[in-house]
Amino acid sequence: MNRSHYCGEVTEALAGQSVTLCGWVDRTRDLGGLLFMGLRDTAGVVQVVVEPDSEAFPAAEKLRNEFCVQVTGTVRERPESQWNEQMATGRIEVVANAIELLNASAPMPLLMTDEDGEEVRLKYRYLDLRRPRMQRNLKVRAAMYRAIRNSLDERRFVELETPILTRATPEGARDYLVPSRVHAGQFFALPQSPQLFKQLLMMSGMDRYYQIARCFRDEDLRADRQPEFTQLDMELSFVSEEEVQAISEDLIREVFRDVLGDDLPQPFPRLSWREAMERFGSDKPDLRIPGELVTVDGHVAHLEFKVFAGPAAAHDQRVAALRVPGGAELSRKQIDDYTKYVARYGAKGLAWIKVNDAGAGLEGLQSPIAKFLDEGAWSGIAEASGAATGDLLFFGAGDWQTASTFMGQLRLKLAHDRDTVEPGWKPLWVTEFPMFEWDAETGRYYAMHHPFTAPLDPDPEALRADPAAALSRGYDLVLNGSELGGGSIRIHDPKLQQVVFDLLGIGAEEAVEKFGFLLEALRYGAPPHGGIAFGLDRWAALLTGEESIRDVIAFPKTTTAQCLMTAAPSAIADGQLAELHVRSVVEADQPDASNEAGESD
Amino acid sequence: MNRSHYCGEVTEALAGQSVTLCGWVDRTRDLGGLLFMGLRDTAGVVQVVVEPDSEAFPAAEKLRNEFCVQVTGTVRERPESQWNEQMATGRIEVVANAIELLNASAPMPLLMTDEDGEEVRLKYRYLDLRRPRMQRNLKVRAAMYRAIRNSLDERRFVELETPILTRATPEGARDYLVPSRVHAGQFFALPQSPQLFKQLLMMSGMDRYYQIARCFRDEDLRADRQPEFTQLDMELSFVSEEEVQAISEDLIREVFRDVLGDDLPQPFPRLSWREAMERFGSDKPDLRIPGELVTVDGHVAHLEFKVFAGPAAAHDQRVAALRVPGGAELSRKQIDDYTKYVARYGAKGLAWIKVNDAGAGLEGLQSPIAKFLDEGAWSGIAEASGAATGDLLFFGAGDWQTASTFMGQLRLKLAHDRDTVEPGWKPLWVTEFPMFEWDAETGRYYAMHHPFTAPLDPDPEALRADPAAALSRGYDLVLNGSELGGGSIRIHDPKLQQVVFDLLGIGAEEAVEKFGFLLEALRYGAPPHGGIAFGLDRWAALLTGEESIRDVIAFPKTTTAQCLMTAAPSAIADGQLAELHVRSVVEADQPDASNEAGESD
Repeated sequence: MNRSHYCGEVTEALAGQSVTLCGWVDRTRDLGGLLFMGLRDTAGVVQVVVEPDSEAFPAAEKLRNEFCVQVTGTVRERPESQWNEQMATGRIEVVANAIELLNASAPMPLLMTDEDGEEVRLKYRYLDLRRPRMQRNLKVRAAMYRAIRNSLDERRFVELETPILTRATPEGARDYLVPSRVHAGQFFALPQSPQLFKQLLMMSGMDRYYQIARCFRDEDLRADRQPEFTQLDMELSFVSEEEVQAISEDLIREVFRDVLGDDLPQPFPRLSWREAMERFGSDKPDLRIPGELVTVDGHVAHLEFKVFAGPAAAHDQRVAALRVPGGAELSRKQIDDYTKYVARYGAKGLAWIKVNDAGAGLEGLQSPIAKFLDEGAWSGIAEASGAATGDLLFFGAGDWQTASTFMGQLRLKLAHDRDTVEPGWKPLWVTEFPMFEWDAETGRYYAMHHPFTAPLDPDPEALRADPAAALSRGYDLVLNGSELGGGSIRIHDPKLQQVVFDLLGIGAEEAVEKFGFLLEALRYGAPPHGGIAFGLDRWAALLTGEESIRDVIAFPKTTTAQCLMTAAPSAIADGQLAELHVRSVVEADQPDASNEAGESD
Repeated sequence: MNRSHYCGEVTEALAGQSVTLCGWVDRTRDLGGLLFMGLRDTAGVVQVVVEPDSEAFPAAEKLRNEFCVQVTGTVRERPESQWNEQMATGRIEVVANAIELLNASAPMPLLMTDEDGEEVRLKYRYLDLRRPRMQRNLKVRAAMYRAIRNSLDERRFVELETPILTRATPEGARDYLVPSRVHAGQFFALPQSPQLFKQLLMMSGMDRYYQIARCFRDEDLRADRQPEFTQLDMELSFVSEEEVQAISEDLIREVFRDVLGDDLPQPFPRLSWREAMERFGSDKPDLRIPGELVTVDGHVAHLEFKVFAGPAAAHDQRVAALRVPGGAELSRKQIDDYTKYVARYGAKGLAWIKVNDAGAGLEGLQSPIAKFLDEGAWSGIAEASGAATGDLLFFGAGDWQTASTFMGQLRLKLAHDRDTVEPGWKPLWVTEFPMFEWDAETGRYYAMHHPFTAPLDPDPEALRADPAAALSRGYDLVLNGSELGGGSIRIHDPKLQQVVFDLLGIGAEEAVEKFGFLLEALRYGAPPHGGIAFGLDRWAALLTGEESIRDVIAFPKTTTAQCLMTAAPSAIADGQLAELHVRSVVEADQPDASNEAGESD
């Protein structure tokens, strides 16, 4: 074909020249006999003018929105009064000599604007993606991939592929399964991550590996999860956590600089998990929000007020204060709403103090708990929190983790409600996570990262002696309150790995059955190694400023794991299932069995 | 950790310096009290010397092959007499001061050489991959990916991801299926290729797309097929086949230059499918092999010899000759073996002539068919084929396609047997394929490429009138006799698409059911578009000089679609299957049901 330029790139530098453009009719207007038409391609829109005596006029008259056309014409500068500085092509127009209709279009089934509902957008995704916003999102994502690869290729990483048809891993989330035709009664699983394969690649001596890997989790989808998602997966041999973190930081800085031209801090700040919980009530603190939780245990332990004094004295409890600058203006109803909000996170109550006059001691306060305080307690609290006239303080008391968490959630909620989130990029590392979480319901430990994460103290006996106290060599990278990625130094000692399996309730026999190939591989000189993985859907959403990861995925699924465009999943003929040695077992009254998304059988 | 250099990169430039290396013990030797040790990492091997009085000596004495160690030492130049010019590190050695054992190793369960059988190599893939040959293969593959992306990124292609959990496409090969938990009785399919998605991306206005995409086919595996494979998938809007081909050629030339430093011809030669079959008896001719098939119809049509005269006169048959230089030396047994060989490809016989004296006319020939020839026939054949003294000519006669094919196979076989394949890279395009193949068994047409390929003549009525004669806008890229990739200009006219579906026996209703979303998308100003896909496993094998694609895949499956390392596929508990609304249906005497590869239930 004969395209000479992209529509969005015809500028005054081409004035007087003939161009041939291909694209879609964006809109047409008839102004005093002249026909004006926006012509849009992936690079942008250009204005085409068809004069009434032009040979192109009869063809142009028949054009409607989204018709696909080829236009040949001459670039003409517009008079300055008609410049449109919003558009790269806004100082010129193309005077058409010839218009060839490449394909007509039926009327659009959607508005092609941000007003369209998500259902119609996903059903007609091929039209939704024509919108400049979606074109830009997907291009930013591609630029992000390019920047990632450039950064890692320069640092001797080797891009390697790991299998999609692999073995079920019984820990973790639910696997998607694939029946085998050749091996009756057996199933492949789609990988939740390439974790074991990347560790095996280190045992293979591959030294530094990365992959932009598709991963799969058959979970009940929360609003912003997808059944298949993309992760940047990295692993390195002969490294410490500091080396993994330094390389990751360089990577992130380079991506933000290449894609957005933004500079991130160097180095990123670093918090232990304990400190992050203590100061921000979160393992992924949003550092764009001013203000921190303040522990006031020392100032209230002596009070008669048991709600504070009890937690302040107990080693696994706390009393945390959060200052709300200007918060004295909050109504009783607003305070009640915040109390209900934190109840979702386990708060039994939410004490508060309004500081009407910071210079007046207890007299200056308005609070249901003021009567329980003494001047010493208040002056300690006031100094620790920095409370000033017009502020409000919220207090959370109780179990250390619960109180930290609900106060952390309150901090986020207040910041968004009061619009105090500062602009910019605030990355940080969170480190030294607990190795294990105890689950009271099942009466067992669960791995906080995953069962292959190394403990800070490599002594198997120390780990066995006090697992609850053990910290891990795991680390998370947090950006603006979102977890961008996480990783760890792994266990490379087969004995230590078995101790961790033991503590997780996976005995020697079960370990061999489930992870035998990993345990076997650890026996042959496995190198010290570690790595990290980044969720690229979320990362792309951050880079494009989108709320939803669905807006940075070309063909996403709904929250019920359907593709509205292709109507997947779909029914399959019994004969085809028989070849795979499976049979559908559908209850007659199963509401989903005759799902209306359309199927073939 | 403290690694200062890679083992394989310690050269005389570092003489006198202290280095810290990490790697695996490649072998140890005790020479007159000195301990010599090869230390290997991903970059290569370096020789480490441990002197008897060194503090490192006690640790060194305990090392065995594949122990993982960190060595600190001083680089020392070897005397010239001890240079090993085979190794990049062959002029130096590292005199160890300290050796830290990072991980011991059990004795290797395989030889770690080319002598290892494939089964043990795949079971202990993580050890097999430590071999320099495998390290190199995977790095060449990664370099190929980098070169591909550089080439396409420069040409405004956008890297986009398409779903892995998608809708079953009932045409083509068997799909791998994934039961849906949320939608009982419904299944996702893994994509055989992103074909429909990439066409939809063109309708999305994405203009130029590529993806290094994982694809899946549940086929009975031939020796060199994998159930999952990787393809470079490309699609472009507003292009002709020549533009797709030019960009593909640039891509391939850049990859071969970047990865191997090899220059490929520019432009690539081009043959129509008809000419490729006529001259080489193949739709993927190996142009490294000298000699072509020669049609001798005009020289033998007048003979009484019906075996030749019949095919020579019929328009859909032929008599093809293949000259074997020096072939007069072939024994009767060898000729018989070739006759049997071509019988596999449908040959009913294989006539031959030995040219004992090219100057003596019929008198100079030795052949069972000499008596059927006359001087005119022979001189015509001799001139057309270039037969000289000492040569042999083989003749294939019969149905045009059958005779062409078995003579093409004979050409390949002879070249490999007689070692006449010339070195170097011989790419070419094969174009103008028939649109359809008629299958006599099922009494219907099949698409030679796929049902979305545009016919050369865009008139739907012309196509309907004589489908058997229709040629397509498909093209294959062939390199050294392997199909590297294939593609086509696609249909963008919904009416033409329906005519093709009709001819393939897919009625309007069935088309809507199977491909409704594509037909719908074609209604909204679909642009003219086309693309191509390259099989990257085969391409990587060509670049590394490997015979088997399994040697360029980190974790391949066997020909029965198993992973010997992880023992996938595996049995799954009934409860987990019930959640997916399926049940295993395994015959009690099914031999595979209790497959010994090991499972969990």
